[in-house]
Amino acid sequence: MSVTEDTVRLSRDGRALDIIDQTLLPGRAERVQLRTTEEIWDAIRRLRVRGAPAIGVSAAFGFYLAALNALTEDPEEFWRLCTEAGKYLNSARPTAVNLSWAVRRMQSVLDSMRGESVAAQREALRREANAVYEEDKAVCRRIGENGLTLLEPGMGILTHCNAGRLAAVQLGTATAPIYVGEEKGYGFHVFCDETRPLLQGIRLTSYELTDAGIDTTVICDNMAPTVMRRGMVQAVLVGCDRVAANGDTANKIGTGGVALAARRYGVPFYVCAPSSTIDMETRTGEEIVIEERGGEEITSMWYREPMAPAGVRTFNPSFDVTDAADITAIITEYGIAYPPYEQSLAEIMRRKREENGLSGQSAGIGGHS
Amino acid sequence: MSVTEDTVRLSRDGRALDIIDQTLLPGRAERVQLRTTEEIWDAIRRLRVRGAPAIGVSAAFGFYLAALNALTEDPEEFWRLCTEAGKYLNSARPTAVNLSWAVRRMQSVLDSMRGESVAAQREALRREANAVYEEDKAVCRRIGENGLTLLEPGMGILTHCNAGRLAAVQLGTATAPIYVGEEKGYGFHVFCDETRPLLQGIRLTSYELTDAGIDTTVICDNMAPTVMRRGMVQAVLVGCDRVAANGDTANKIGTGGVALAARRYGVPFYVCAPSSTIDMETRTGEEIVIEERGGEEITSMWYREPMAPAGVRTFNPSFDVTDAADITAIITEYGIAYPPYEQSLAEIMRRKREENGLSGQSAGIGGHS
Repeated sequence: MSVTEDTVRLSRDGRALDIIDQTLLPGRAERVQLRTTEEIWDAIRRLRVRGAPAIGVSAAFGFYLAALNALTEDPEEFWRLCTEAGKYLNSARPTAVNLSWAVRRMQSVLDSMRGESVAAQREALRREANAVYEEDKAVCRRIGENGLTLLEPGMGILTHCNAGRLAAVQLGTATAPIYVGEEKGYGFHVFCDETRPLLQGIRLTSYELTDAGIDTTVICDNMAPTVMRRGMVQAVLVGCDRVAANGDTANKIGTGGVALAARRYGVPFYVCAPSSTIDMETRTGEEIVIEERGGEEITSMWYREPMAPAGVRTFNPSFDVTDAADITAIITEYGIAYPPYEQSLAEIMRRKREENGLSGQSAGIGGHS
Repeated sequence: MSVTEDTVRLSRDGRALDIIDQTLLPGRAERVQLRTTEEIWDAIRRLRVRGAPAIGVSAAFGFYLAALNALTEDPEEFWRLCTEAGKYLNSARPTAVNLSWAVRRMQSVLDSMRGESVAAQREALRREANAVYEEDKAVCRRIGENGLTLLEPGMGILTHCNAGRLAAVQLGTATAPIYVGEEKGYGFHVFCDETRPLLQGIRLTSYELTDAGIDTTVICDNMAPTVMRRGMVQAVLVGCDRVAANGDTANKIGTGGVALAARRYGVPFYVCAPSSTIDMETRTGEEIVIEERGGEEITSMWYREPMAPAGVRTFNPSFDVTDAADITAIITEYGIAYPPYEQSLAEIMRRKREENGLSGQSAGIGGHS
């Protein structure tokens, strides 16, 4: 597996979704080919594929493969079979925004073709799924190129959680400037927070970076301030789940603490944000509802035996909000936003509308939960 | 086991060291009686007893039990047997400051009694070991009482690592104000950072607090800023390994990050420091050498299978330094020091010399690694 090998793609014969099975990482890197809608549903459900962009692309290809496997020449029956498959795929992870976004996008193409020949409907779906896939690659590449303008060769870079290529088709978001820099021989030294409780940093980010030949060091989350205090990193790059209109950013739990340390020790803190994660309807981070998950993720999930006394209470928020005041810049595919973010993010969204025209379909690839 | 039951003590028959076996926590709370010097050496070595004060008291009792078991009536032979036992005990954990401190203290009593009858030497050692034990209890109690003056009933309190009663004879240091408050019905709500990588917070602190009937919630280290941001805690209490003359404080890795968040969100940050941990010879935190430990503590130690890709680099500093500027107050058994710490800590040490007189033996109980 190399950095240019897509995490998610259509198989060579065009009849299967071909993914890296993330449930086997970091022990084994294995690709699997999923041919049926049921197999794809199951892979999304069981996190064999995860990360919002990767889920969105998988769902788009899954929708298309359902169309490919819909064995009817009756246009209306075909429409019905595909619509059902879309609803089914959408049920794999009810709260994954990119899953429902991708299904809606495919459904809207299907609806616009309703009544036309099965072959024509199928071809339109193939093109749309491919567009979702290509757009994801383009968004990540542009974030990488924009982000790289903020970095210098040889820098130490700290990242949190996995907003990496394993969460997208290629390059990822927070990791995109690192990979694009690597292509140009920048020789970064990357520190990965392990990212408790789900350990995406140690299990996934450190895996994909070392696999790509990048100098990588794993630390516990609580060591990030020490690494910055000692001058071992010159930039922080993180992904995001949602950016409010004022720049407040929701991302994986622990991101906010990294930002506080970065500010204290004078390390620039950059959020890599596909424009689809910028939510101008949300004014500030106060309005973002934070998901809380079960305590077993903290007390026992990975361990040989429970590490907490039986029945102890836990508090397990999955995300936190980083204050806009602690963010040096927000890197998007339409450019880099600096404070004050109310203005600069509005300008990013204006550029997006301009580039996509009035009919422009949102690139729509969200965060990397 | 209750809050008033000593973590470390002499057995009822006076012929064994009686400890809570911490390697079995939090699954089982079992006391074991250790009769021979070899058993005590092994218990210190294998962390069946851990935490600097508890190790110091164990070594003092261990020295005395060696004297009890030295079957000779020849004073010189007795002196030789005890001295050898002391050296042997001291080798159990070569870097544990309190271990060598307790052995030196016992040896100095032994030396001062050299040539006197075996019974007289033995009795002097019994008294000295008991003094070490009583002093530890008194120091923790006074820290608890002093610290409680800074707290209000019903407060949420956050603590990091284990500077609890499991690390001392009773009450602990960071937990002492909590336990003393509990005796008075303060009804605190305590948040325990799990404290990666060795998990002392979840394995030990949450155990001892719930065991004492205190409302306890476990969080991952990276959730502490969220808890403070949301107004769930009104004070932070941590222990320390060493306090420099300017107030910079070395403590378990992660403490510094907690302090940054506390400052940002306006939560008072208190260090509970036995005066023995105040090192006036160390001017600032920059002079404190931080131990680094093996990466397997991060990558695999507790897990069913390794969580990191094979061979990935790690960085595992065991402690960090909290800037004096981020510390609201330092709570000692001789009173509470406020900034500027150069003056207030010097005053604490002056009170200590005064109280102990010129011949005063340092209470000498250090941090809680």
